[in-house]
Amino acid sequence: MGATLYVCTTCKAGSPVPEGELSPGARLHVALVAADVPDVRVVGVECLSACNTGCAVSLTKPGAWSYVYGRLTLDDVPAILEGAGKYAATTDGIVPWRDRPTVFRKQSIARIPPLTLDEAAE
Amino acid sequence: MGATLYVCTTCKAGSPVPEGELSPGARLHVALVAADVPDVRVVGVECLSACNTGCAVSLTKPGAWSYVYGRLTLDDVPAILEGAGKYAATTDGIVPWRDRPTVFRKQSIARIPPLTLDEAAE
Repeated sequence: MGATLYVCTTCKAGSPVPEGELSPGARLHVALVAADVPDVRVVGVECLSACNTGCAVSLTKPGAWSYVYGRLTLDDVPAILEGAGKYAATTDGIVPWRDRPTVFRKQSIARIPPLTLDEAAE
Repeated sequence: MGATLYVCTTCKAGSPVPEGELSPGARLHVALVAADVPDVRVVGVECLSACNTGCAVSLTKPGAWSYVYGRLTLDDVPAILEGAGKYAATTDGIVPWRDRPTVFRKQSIARIPPLTLDEAAE
């Protein structure tokens, strides 16, 4: 099973959204969903509860560590897609540090161990 | 299957840890693991990648939303345990807002949808 890239579509990134315009999160979702990364499914969600650090996305897949990244903009779309592809290619979700896009190294909000984990370390 | 409460044992909560002393995260883990909450398994992990918002914990279980909370101290132990028990009693991981401990309402770092989700909303 491939990876899922959840994209918060309600993120306002700290600014009010003018009536009739898409939120920054919705625009990020549109840009990411338009791409085609093997084994990566892009799904919009209404809130990732990371409102203080939006725009936010989450990468998850069965049996692997899940990650949340924040403070993202449209400029980060290529790096997000690159990182998502590398994540999908792992079994445990852990992409070697040197191989991670800079935005994934510097803008990690949190990660959650796989459910099977009893004691974890990177 | 019950819930798992992951506790970051490496969190320094923004301060250097004197040699020979436990980190704030390790002390939080000791306090939480000593408690006995039905259907909640407390597991220490080496890093939740939430270093800017430590101490951090994560609540997760199969088929449910996972949550990460941060900026926690030993004073929050009773509220964390209360919230973990309520989380364990849900099927989807979503505790009604009014029933959440204040620390869970105000110190959410992020949440991740269950893997089965196609389109999510609270």
